[in-house]
Amino acid sequence: MDQDYISMWQNLGIDLENHDCLLKALAEFYQQIYLSQEKRPEGMKYFDFVISEAHGLRIKELLEAKKQGKKVIGTFCVYVPEEMILAVKGICVGLCAGAQIGFDEAEKVLPKNTCDLIKAFIGFKLTQVCPYTESCDLLVGETTCDGKKKAYEILDKLTRKVYVMEVPHRKTEVSKELFLKELFNFKEKLEEISGQKMSLETLREGVKIVNEKRKALMRLESLRAHDPVPISGLDALLVDQIAFYDAPIRFTQKVNELCDELEERVKMGVGVKPKGTPRVLITGCPFALPNWKLHHLIEASGAVVVGEESCVGRRYYHTLVPENFNSVKESIKALAERYLNTHCACFTPNTERIEDIKNMAKELNAQGIIYYSIQFCTPYLFEAYQVEKALNFPFLKIDTNYSTEDVGQIKTRVEAFIETL
Amino acid sequence: MDQDYISMWQNLGIDLENHDCLLKALAEFYQQIYLSQEKRPEGMKYFDFVISEAHGLRIKELLEAKKQGKKVIGTFCVYVPEEMILAVKGICVGLCAGAQIGFDEAEKVLPKNTCDLIKAFIGFKLTQVCPYTESCDLLVGETTCDGKKKAYEILDKLTRKVYVMEVPHRKTEVSKELFLKELFNFKEKLEEISGQKMSLETLREGVKIVNEKRKALMRLESLRAHDPVPISGLDALLVDQIAFYDAPIRFTQKVNELCDELEERVKMGVGVKPKGTPRVLITGCPFALPNWKLHHLIEASGAVVVGEESCVGRRYYHTLVPENFNSVKESIKALAERYLNTHCACFTPNTERIEDIKNMAKELNAQGIIYYSIQFCTPYLFEAYQVEKALNFPFLKIDTNYSTEDVGQIKTRVEAFIETL
Repeated sequence: MDQDYISMWQNLGIDLENHDCLLKALAEFYQQIYLSQEKRPEGMKYFDFVISEAHGLRIKELLEAKKQGKKVIGTFCVYVPEEMILAVKGICVGLCAGAQIGFDEAEKVLPKNTCDLIKAFIGFKLTQVCPYTESCDLLVGETTCDGKKKAYEILDKLTRKVYVMEVPHRKTEVSKELFLKELFNFKEKLEEISGQKMSLETLREGVKIVNEKRKALMRLESLRAHDPVPISGLDALLVDQIAFYDAPIRFTQKVNELCDELEERVKMGVGVKPKGTPRVLITGCPFALPNWKLHHLIEASGAVVVGEESCVGRRYYHTLVPENFNSVKESIKALAERYLNTHCACFTPNTERIEDIKNMAKELNAQGIIYYSIQFCTPYLFEAYQVEKALNFPFLKIDTNYSTEDVGQIKTRVEAFIETL
Repeated sequence: MDQDYISMWQNLGIDLENHDCLLKALAEFYQQIYLSQEKRPEGMKYFDFVISEAHGLRIKELLEAKKQGKKVIGTFCVYVPEEMILAVKGICVGLCAGAQIGFDEAEKVLPKNTCDLIKAFIGFKLTQVCPYTESCDLLVGETTCDGKKKAYEILDKLTRKVYVMEVPHRKTEVSKELFLKELFNFKEKLEEISGQKMSLETLREGVKIVNEKRKALMRLESLRAHDPVPISGLDALLVDQIAFYDAPIRFTQKVNELCDELEERVKMGVGVKPKGTPRVLITGCPFALPNWKLHHLIEASGAVVVGEESCVGRRYYHTLVPENFNSVKESIKALAERYLNTHCACFTPNTERIEDIKNMAKELNAQGIIYYSIQFCTPYLFEAYQVEKALNFPFLKIDTNYSTEDVGQIKTRVEAFIETL
């Protein structure tokens, strides 16, 4: 390993032994799941590189930006507007974690019945293996679910860097007002921590950058509608995951280059799987890096994942922010409106999500829907019942965690489901 | 059984067979846990009677009031102001449920990993055994925890009577504004459903009635500070539980009569347990009727419960609403302030709760604290860690449900704990 990186990690307070284990496991896992795929687009090479340098080059970039006075802001949720972080010249990184690391430590401070996404971000902190968390100047939590909300209290005790934004649970007028005010408070907090003023210009720039990123991701998604599908669900998921921490302008360019290639594939009728491969839409909980378990199981079972109604998926890039605002206030209003129009199960009621699933299934020509919930994720587990009832569509519910214990059982169920499609 | 009651239940749509099973089990259970206690105060006879007529006389009263045009409003949470319901001449009844009834049915529509309190109120509805739910004109839900919030969606599908109020999860200025606005919306809803105007006079009357109830409950609590303790924890708990559905003026009078008797006992040095009996404070989740499991286990193990830092306990009667308001608006403001000053684990941060526990332990001369959480109750399970760390006090954590399966195991742990006090 590059000696520069090792001293960089040391300076960040990373536990080198734990970290080494993580990187080795990840590299092996990546080889096995990603690099073994056939007919991958050339454009995925960039994303392979990003993954291989996730704890190296990208962290170096963050630290160099920090030296120039920029702030690194960690988030855990798609209700926290990245545009505002960019508008104070900050760097936004998503900190949700998708691997079973530090769970023994995490379970000493968290209830056992906590979802693995939460155990993971607390576990990553307790075992000191995440250079992103360590690089952050601020960790932005929110009140979306009981587990995360209460875990931020513990994370704050461990880091003293947590700021919590109240996200309402209804979409009434008073709830919208609350969220708007919370964004104004967030603006103040960002300005205070960065020493930068959020201006009309910087907001325009931030909105433009994130809109372009979302457009590229929408473009990628729409290409998955074709049969044969030009990219695997695993690869598309990887791009969605990297969206949360790569430099946004470069990322957007690389996604568009990938899409150019995929458009060529579509024209030529080239796919990663044969025409007629069973097509699955996934709906439910987010897939934090490196959570590739379900996609891998589905695609190893002979189907292809064509979309994700998920926070790592369409709920991240679902709509653009109108760019025709003429004041800081107007832009924050536009952001509040766009962000609250995200249909997470933490809201009540959340019937719009059912429409989203129906639309996605139709647009992406899905033949079956797999409902993914992380064990103990109350909001998504509750909605599963209503979603299943409301959809008249082949439906499979998978309630799982980050372990590999249930892989055999899930594979059997997924295979049986795919046969019915 | 009185034929009048049977036809009353039939008219309400009660499933007589299920209901009969419930009443029989309850009577047996009550005999075994309550009526077998020694040296009970005379004043408990009224509360025994209320329990015995919980599904009879009290329902008759509700139905008679409904005939006179009054509305019955069901609630599930101490953040819903009873004063406002009284101010439209309504009747407020608490609908949380404390028995394992209809769980098989409930688990068809709820995730298995749902807390028993939620399973119970959904199970009671699905098996049609609760004449309170059936008598209600409106069921008022709130957004306190993920489980209840999402369960109300299902309850609304079953009843078409649910109204949900947003309760914020922080105590910042913007969150307080949200809650105040939600109370104004609740006022409108109550006025609409009752056809009654909420006036300064009716609000004054409502506040007065509920303040008197709270004063009586505080008086009862303070008498539990004495050694020997003049009333068992089980009996005090029963009074707190009945507070949620008995006619408030009558109830207050009866609590005060009981307190008069207890004061006499204190003067005479008479107690229900010998002087020096180990004294326990319970903190955590609410005890919905007929959840007497933990109190029974503790008191059968040779200790006495001297207080509950719980929504069925001090979180219900903790402070009074100032009565010096001079307009409807002022009164709603006073209510919002008082109610938000309740320290439930659904808030973040909620450090005030730790102070409350410390204060209660001191005021009630507790020697040990038992932290009670209902299995899968994320907010209280999360806070357990912080509470234990913050208290320098003998501490036992009990994570349980409504079943009797773990009774032996809990009893062993409680006995061992009590021995250390």
